[in-house]
Amino acid sequence: MKFNNCIVTGIDLGGSALRLSTVTGNGRLRYSRRVDISERREKKYIIASIINNVRELSAIERHHGNEVMAVGIGSPGIIDLNKGVVIASPNFKDWEDVRLRSILQKALDLPVILDNDANAAAYGEKWKGAGRKVNSLVCLTMGTGIGGGIILNGDVWHGIDGMAGEIGHMTVNPAGPRCNCRNTGCLEAYSSATGMVRSAAAALKCGKRSILKKLSNGDNSSITARMIYEAALKGDGLSTEILAEAGKYLGIAMASLINILNPEMIVLTGAVTGAWDLFMPAARQEVKKRAYNVLAERTQIVKGKLTDSAGIVGAAGLALKQIEI
Amino acid sequence: MKFNNCIVTGIDLGGSALRLSTVTGNGRLRYSRRVDISERREKKYIIASIINNVRELSAIERHHGNEVMAVGIGSPGIIDLNKGVVIASPNFKDWEDVRLRSILQKALDLPVILDNDANAAAYGEKWKGAGRKVNSLVCLTMGTGIGGGIILNGDVWHGIDGMAGEIGHMTVNPAGPRCNCRNTGCLEAYSSATGMVRSAAAALKCGKRSILKKLSNGDNSSITARMIYEAALKGDGLSTEILAEAGKYLGIAMASLINILNPEMIVLTGAVTGAWDLFMPAARQEVKKRAYNVLAERTQIVKGKLTDSAGIVGAAGLALKQIEI
Repeated sequence: MKFNNCIVTGIDLGGSALRLSTVTGNGRLRYSRRVDISERREKKYIIASIINNVRELSAIERHHGNEVMAVGIGSPGIIDLNKGVVIASPNFKDWEDVRLRSILQKALDLPVILDNDANAAAYGEKWKGAGRKVNSLVCLTMGTGIGGGIILNGDVWHGIDGMAGEIGHMTVNPAGPRCNCRNTGCLEAYSSATGMVRSAAAALKCGKRSILKKLSNGDNSSITARMIYEAALKGDGLSTEILAEAGKYLGIAMASLINILNPEMIVLTGAVTGAWDLFMPAARQEVKKRAYNVLAERTQIVKGKLTDSAGIVGAAGLALKQIEI
Repeated sequence: MKFNNCIVTGIDLGGSALRLSTVTGNGRLRYSRRVDISERREKKYIIASIINNVRELSAIERHHGNEVMAVGIGSPGIIDLNKGVVIASPNFKDWEDVRLRSILQKALDLPVILDNDANAAAYGEKWKGAGRKVNSLVCLTMGTGIGGGIILNGDVWHGIDGMAGEIGHMTVNPAGPRCNCRNTGCLEAYSSATGMVRSAAAALKCGKRSILKKLSNGDNSSITARMIYEAALKGDGLSTEILAEAGKYLGIAMASLINILNPEMIVLTGAVTGAWDLFMPAARQEVKKRAYNVLAERTQIVKGKLTDSAGIVGAAGLALKQIEI
């Protein structure tokens, strides 16, 4: 049975905000909520917020004659998909072996599907975004970190433990800088917001001249990726270089992904893609240089279409799939 | 309908030999042929050899009361899977847009399945080799070059054009040496037989001391991977280093594959795996350092079990799948 008029709730648990929305069977957002959690990240508070907001949204839908049938949630961190457990999360220090799926299921009395946030975003872009017309794509969420989701034959490829798609932690330069994951030279160490900020701070420390010094009032720790972007737009040499370097390593990773998976599309999404014109030329150059021609010409590299709501839409889509019989 | 007692012919078209065998529905080899093609690689000769040998094997099987139902062939090079065409092949210079599948189909009046040689080997290891009990694996064939095949949910992942699995051409060091594919720093440029020979020649040119100089009579162009292996066994420092470096870059590639695909198993096969004990310690060290712990602990890294016959068995298995209705 396929519920075309079915309503589900999609949840995107981000580092700074918890975002929820009821979503139709066609992927249209209905009633939405945003809870700022940049100041309060304790497990108890967040789980209570999720439960309360899902209940409220269900009540609103019920008032309009609709029944929320399931909940999908995309969470950052390392997730045991089979058990529905968040094993650890870089954003939430006190999250360790949190049985999120069963906790929510019990409290809400609804089927709950838990997946990685980047997988949810990838599925969202496949279902209702840039990848609507393709069956295979790789999606990179480029923000504070770099997440990845792989869609093959229309479905998320989870791997044996549900942890596939950690594309941010491909090694793109073995001798590169240390990454948060303890490896060196990961894609994330170059092409995430954090990576670019690290590059800028390191260059300034070495005496490189840049208007970033002025913009940050000489305080390297206050540099942000947005600052680098704005400085580059003003013609700052160092900032332009950092964005090109981020693009270069992104291109190296994409070339390898193309040679490994021969996908129809690579979708780039997340805040960093705001600087698209500043990093993509270098990225495309590396893809051209490093991927097999036939494959590189085939793979479309595009910006995500759902922007902020890819995760919510995708989580909802995964929940819908779950209850389709 | 599943033909359990069905006979098919599997073909492995290698750089130096054309190998064929009839294979039972259970993956057992029956009558085999090996044609040396190291001296004669013209398209016409090879295709005629294939046709004649398949016919002969079919006649032998018929004599024993069995009917060959289909032919599977694994070919090196760039293959358009949908069209059954070998677009180009590094081993066979005059192969260009060869409609191999339809040529064989017409001549043999049998269903023919054409796939990449590394995909065939991967499927062989999955079907009857090291990967029998798993559903997802990545197989690397380490010989003159490095081929790759990816098995997901028990089937070859072909990608949109049938060209997925070019794992030998992942970039493992952007600043590395040039590869035959025109990229720099590919896995193949370090960890294939050719890559190791290149490393040795470069080191000797720079004045590195090694018994390779004596073994090759001072002629760098006569160095082989086997020579490096034997020198390392005798304690030669440079040769030991070269094998460790091959292992290091193999480990970097495997760590990325583990983070990307979260597979159950990585199977290494091909002549280079004869030096297993000399390159695997360095490879495992990189995997440990670079892959997510949970994932790295999960993925078994093993030697192929079918050795030389992985390609034949796999090609036969792919043909069997094709005729199962």
